[in-house]
Amino acid sequence: MEIQVAVAKVGKYATRESGDTLEMIERPRGGLSVVLVDGQQSGRGAKAISNLVARKAVSLLGEGVRDGAAARAAHDYLFTQHEGKVQACLNIVSIDLVSKTLLFTRNSPLPIFVVRPDGVQELAAPSTPVGLYRHTRPVITELPLEDHTTAVVYTDGLASAGIRRGQPFPLRAAVERLHSEGLAVAQKWADRLLAEALERDEQRPVDDISILVVAVLPRQAPDDARRLLVRMPL
Amino acid sequence: MEIQVAVAKVGKYATRESGDTLEMIERPRGGLSVVLVDGQQSGRGAKAISNLVARKAVSLLGEGVRDGAAARAAHDYLFTQHEGKVQACLNIVSIDLVSKTLLFTRNSPLPIFVVRPDGVQELAAPSTPVGLYRHTRPVITELPLEDHTTAVVYTDGLASAGIRRGQPFPLRAAVERLHSEGLAVAQKWADRLLAEALERDEQRPVDDISILVVAVLPRQAPDDARRLLVRMPL
Repeated sequence: MEIQVAVAKVGKYATRESGDTLEMIERPRGGLSVVLVDGQQSGRGAKAISNLVARKAVSLLGEGVRDGAAARAAHDYLFTQHEGKVQACLNIVSIDLVSKTLLFTRNSPLPIFVVRPDGVQELAAPSTPVGLYRHTRPVITELPLEDHTTAVVYTDGLASAGIRRGQPFPLRAAVERLHSEGLAVAQKWADRLLAEALERDEQRPVDDISILVVAVLPRQAPDDARRLLVRMPL
Repeated sequence: MEIQVAVAKVGKYATRESGDTLEMIERPRGGLSVVLVDGQQSGRGAKAISNLVARKAVSLLGEGVRDGAAARAAHDYLFTQHEGKVQACLNIVSIDLVSKTLLFTRNSPLPIFVVRPDGVQELAAPSTPVGLYRHTRPVITELPLEDHTTAVVYTDGLASAGIRRGQPFPLRAAVERLHSEGLAVAQKWADRLLAEALERDEQRPVDDISILVVAVLPRQAPDDARRLLVRMPL
């Protein structure tokens, strides 16, 4: 089989940089962890917060610290640094080759969509952002690493796209539609969702939008190579 | 303009994992750093070494430590941990949006190829791997961030492809050829070089091969989104 990770990320209209941070790190015992953090508000301040939380989490994950402990530590660090005054939404998605699972660690009220041949599931157990309350803990979900699984994780700019016109993005319906179209590769999922969001926001995003798609697919690559591609317009 | 980063990475034939590690991190004041490390020998042991060096470097770069200091620290860490007994080749490529430069930090005897419209240049000043000698320091090259610049960084599995048949890969000639073909996007550079290396190794790589291509191109993206794509065959 083959794992694909795709990310599409835009900043709020007319801000210099996105307040969201995405980082990725190899798990020392095999696999990959991707961390997506949405810092409170937008612009420079939000970026500094999301960067701090994401860095703490990836640095621990890279040392082999388990995901739940990395999320707790990232929370404790933010809570200590900013005395409980700023918050961030934190999601960690890990492909763990030791346990052969997909591991979702959520500190965010937004659900994660998991799409499998039998339908769309929401990981939506109540979960709070990191940074505000002393004993915040993540909600963890572990799924078997099986073919034909697609997970969609995002920051709230996606969910709130269209809000300027009073029509927030019906995300679940969009995910159902892409699923029924039989969309396979991760990049198309991310690009389609981003394009729809930008259209709803008339190409001027009301908030930072980041979309992270992790797909487990039947093997498509012609060789055994791992590949990475980044595109960054300046 | 647009920055593209492409990586293609395979392990030595019949080993469970590559001894090379590639990690990437956002620079806190804007831009991106990519770290490529080739650990001594191959397999598990090499991976543990390259992972340790790469993690130390990205974690410092993520905190805003300058590239040369991050390379020195990664060296010092490996030298201390392994008492000067193991070595690793370390390359850092940074896209620095503050200084508007491409920054190359080499601790490796292998040259880096820089391709611009006027031809192919080699960053080949003598440079030693990290880990062995107390005062190892990197060789640093800073180039302006200009359109139509492509940099090719790699581990020695690429240079030694074909060595089983006594015909090591004439890399400079391959880079000249791709340049004369007018190859633009980063991914094609990485894929073409990998395909040629695998052919020389009869699809059974003699050593871990990693190829990192950083390209500065005229804007091609239809929108302002940053995009990331990872493909990992299992």
